[in-house]
Amino acid sequence: MRELKEYFTENTRLNYILALLEWDQQVNMMNYKNVIGRSEQMALITKLIHKRLVSNEAGEIIKRAEKLGDLNDIDTAMLREAKRAYDQEIKLPEELVIEIQKTSAIAQQTWQKARQKNDFKSFIPLLEKTIELQRDKARKLETHSDLYSTLIDLYEPGATYDWIANIFNPIKPRLTDFVKKLESSAEKPDDSILNKEYDPDKQFKLSYEILEKLNYDFKQGRQDRSTHPFTTSLGSLDVRITTRTTEPFPSCITGTIHECGHALYEMGIMKELHDTILCTGTSMGIHESQSRLWENVVGRSKEFWTYWYPTFQKYFPENLNNYPMEEFHRAINYVHPSFIRVEADEVTYGLHIILRFEIEKGLIDEKIQVKELPELWNSKFEELLGIVPPNDTLGVLQDVHWGNGYIGYFPTYFLGNLYCAQFYNSALKENPKLPEDYKSGEFSNLLKYLRNNIHQYGSIYRANDLIKRVTGEDLNPDYFMKYIETKFYPIYGL
Amino acid sequence: MRELKEYFTENTRLNYILALLEWDQQVNMMNYKNVIGRSEQMALITKLIHKRLVSNEAGEIIKRAEKLGDLNDIDTAMLREAKRAYDQEIKLPEELVIEIQKTSAIAQQTWQKARQKNDFKSFIPLLEKTIELQRDKARKLETHSDLYSTLIDLYEPGATYDWIANIFNPIKPRLTDFVKKLESSAEKPDDSILNKEYDPDKQFKLSYEILEKLNYDFKQGRQDRSTHPFTTSLGSLDVRITTRTTEPFPSCITGTIHECGHALYEMGIMKELHDTILCTGTSMGIHESQSRLWENVVGRSKEFWTYWYPTFQKYFPENLNNYPMEEFHRAINYVHPSFIRVEADEVTYGLHIILRFEIEKGLIDEKIQVKELPELWNSKFEELLGIVPPNDTLGVLQDVHWGNGYIGYFPTYFLGNLYCAQFYNSALKENPKLPEDYKSGEFSNLLKYLRNNIHQYGSIYRANDLIKRVTGEDLNPDYFMKYIETKFYPIYGL
Repeated sequence: MRELKEYFTENTRLNYILALLEWDQQVNMMNYKNVIGRSEQMALITKLIHKRLVSNEAGEIIKRAEKLGDLNDIDTAMLREAKRAYDQEIKLPEELVIEIQKTSAIAQQTWQKARQKNDFKSFIPLLEKTIELQRDKARKLETHSDLYSTLIDLYEPGATYDWIANIFNPIKPRLTDFVKKLESSAEKPDDSILNKEYDPDKQFKLSYEILEKLNYDFKQGRQDRSTHPFTTSLGSLDVRITTRTTEPFPSCITGTIHECGHALYEMGIMKELHDTILCTGTSMGIHESQSRLWENVVGRSKEFWTYWYPTFQKYFPENLNNYPMEEFHRAINYVHPSFIRVEADEVTYGLHIILRFEIEKGLIDEKIQVKELPELWNSKFEELLGIVPPNDTLGVLQDVHWGNGYIGYFPTYFLGNLYCAQFYNSALKENPKLPEDYKSGEFSNLLKYLRNNIHQYGSIYRANDLIKRVTGEDLNPDYFMKYIETKFYPIYGL
Repeated sequence: MRELKEYFTENTRLNYILALLEWDQQVNMMNYKNVIGRSEQMALITKLIHKRLVSNEAGEIIKRAEKLGDLNDIDTAMLREAKRAYDQEIKLPEELVIEIQKTSAIAQQTWQKARQKNDFKSFIPLLEKTIELQRDKARKLETHSDLYSTLIDLYEPGATYDWIANIFNPIKPRLTDFVKKLESSAEKPDDSILNKEYDPDKQFKLSYEILEKLNYDFKQGRQDRSTHPFTTSLGSLDVRITTRTTEPFPSCITGTIHECGHALYEMGIMKELHDTILCTGTSMGIHESQSRLWENVVGRSKEFWTYWYPTFQKYFPENLNNYPMEEFHRAINYVHPSFIRVEADEVTYGLHIILRFEIEKGLIDEKIQVKELPELWNSKFEELLGIVPPNDTLGVLQDVHWGNGYIGYFPTYFLGNLYCAQFYNSALKENPKLPEDYKSGEFSNLLKYLRNNIHQYGSIYRANDLIKRVTGEDLNPDYFMKYIETKFYPIYGL
């Protein structure tokens, strides 16, 4: 096992270096007029990683490791992930990889213009090609018997279309009913306070204060600004996040807390796994469960604001001094159907995802034609959210994912919400007083629970094993429904 | 030639990546408690560079290129530099390289403590080992017949001990005489104004303004803060500098201008050389000539301050509003023997270097024993500068270089001053009105001259060829003497 561990550790390090090249470009090169040199450097590292993965040496190291019996949990997982990485590289012909890269580069630009100009037609040929290339990729990888499941598996290892559909299908009517119920309330929150002006520099400074209290470790990480917020590991002891100060308030703060949740996961991985192939979150869904837990469950709770609101008032006295905390808390928990996924509240969010999940399945199975998308999108949108996007820019053209070739990624976002509610339910069972902690600015007991039960294991356990280990059962969306009911009925006076 | 160009371009890119890993550590990881992961990443890239250099492929590519006749200047230089890089890697046994790295890591730490505690004795064994390893390295490289020349050649390709000694020896008494003459003046500058308090953030902001005026291109570079100022290329279109706000004033500003000089050199290299092995300054001495030209010749000239002083007064009205520009200009040109090289003025600076040059020669030739160093240092210091360091911290222990194993580096600093004066003399011959430019904040004509004659060529021409091409003669220290006489006699009322 030692040779396998060491061989793949070198790849992990190359991946960290690649992450630095990317982070630096996003954070430090915003004013640069030319980043071609950086692209060449990134292509070079990518090539080196690929070469190492498809080498005979890698294949033989894996073969030898497979002959070893009696592996412990860590070694089993290390072999599993090494094999997974090797298979992903060796099964895809180089021409296909290059074709996907090239198409994605052009599709990205085309999508941007199409979105700007509300011109879906111009995007059709490239989206068609992207879908065909992804189908081809799935055929080559053959991880599952159906193509869409193979693509999903890239982001949520072990998950399949059927498994997710069995979860999403029954929750869909429950969610739409719930949204209608909230909509029918006479006591809806007023969020106009969030559209006032809040000084960006003060927001950034305040986000630092919050990070410190949430136990983000500035001795192994930093927060900077970038166009799009993200979390990235440049080392096992170097997990950085970014934020931005966009409207409405407090999306800089909730964004920071979201990325902090991702970072705390990566920062909590046990030392034994550092620099190995297992030193990363186990799936996109589990990762998202951590970011949403801190952003939504903690960061939009009344207890959280009981502690933080006075500080917010000190930072923004003109806006908040005469504004009651309870109303502010209701404002940031305003639930309402809206067009843009990334701006959606935590209740309607799942419906945005289910829409995309169903469309992706149809596209990959060739039951939906790309040219039908706008109409299909709008009718499904009305069915799920009761409103119709006025144009494609606010509809089918809004997301970056498809242009990038990320088909199968979307469902992990909503899985994140579902995992999150179930994890948090278990955390509360073990320590019912957690919310009381937040009132006094104490967030370390929750973090301890997450570290002990989730973070430390990195990628040792797959998502479905992990949720069973931690909560005693398979993923069960009832916890999410219970969570939103318990939270939003009082806010809506129901 | 194409295969050679491409093969070594990949190495250039790996070197840029290594530079980013280093830059990021210096600039962004100051608060980190652990940088071991970063060290591992740097070691990995270093290993990859080494492997590529010593490969059979590299050797054969070079052999094939050597058989080609009729190469133009660029191809000739490319082959020369490729061969030089290859030889440096292939001639040094791996054990020696590792031993040097290990020793340097320990020697560094030991030196730091020794300097802190003024305890030269504790540094003796490691300095002895360092010297022995450097001797060994020189024996293996065999670039020149004497060991010290081989080490000098690493930093100043083509230069030898004899050549430098022939330049330094005659200038030594001229310099000491000149310093004595200034010292004898009754009209010495008063530099107490520089020891007042100047807000660090304002200094940093002001340094930006100056960079813009000096045509530092923020679209292919940036300035950040670090413990020690430095310039580094992370790409052919990405040349970054750092500064720090230490006392006395205006060392943040002069430091920024110094690094800007280095950066303008790298930024001015012709496009044809981008990403190739020639895309870097041709020697440490030539590089230093550019940084010192901007820092000293321009940045400490009366014309420069004629333009900038009103801005400085706006930034620091309490200190400067009632202080005349002429006095301020004299203050920043105060010449006086002092103990610390990096704080020395541009006249005495050369004497600090000559001292080290002579000592290094003795150490490498085993004519000086390490244990004799403190005494020897102090007596030579008195001979050259007329004062005796009160302790080794202010004497033989002050520099980082020897602990790092950089023997042969020091002479390039003073060569930089000498090259600089000779280049500037030619620039003035072509355009005598350059200093008038500075009075109106116009620095682009000087830059144009430097770009046309020096910068664009990168490493195509070696230092000795370059100075001849540009000025029509070999390096001649008379230009430096003439420069300081013309500048300092008026300042000292002589």
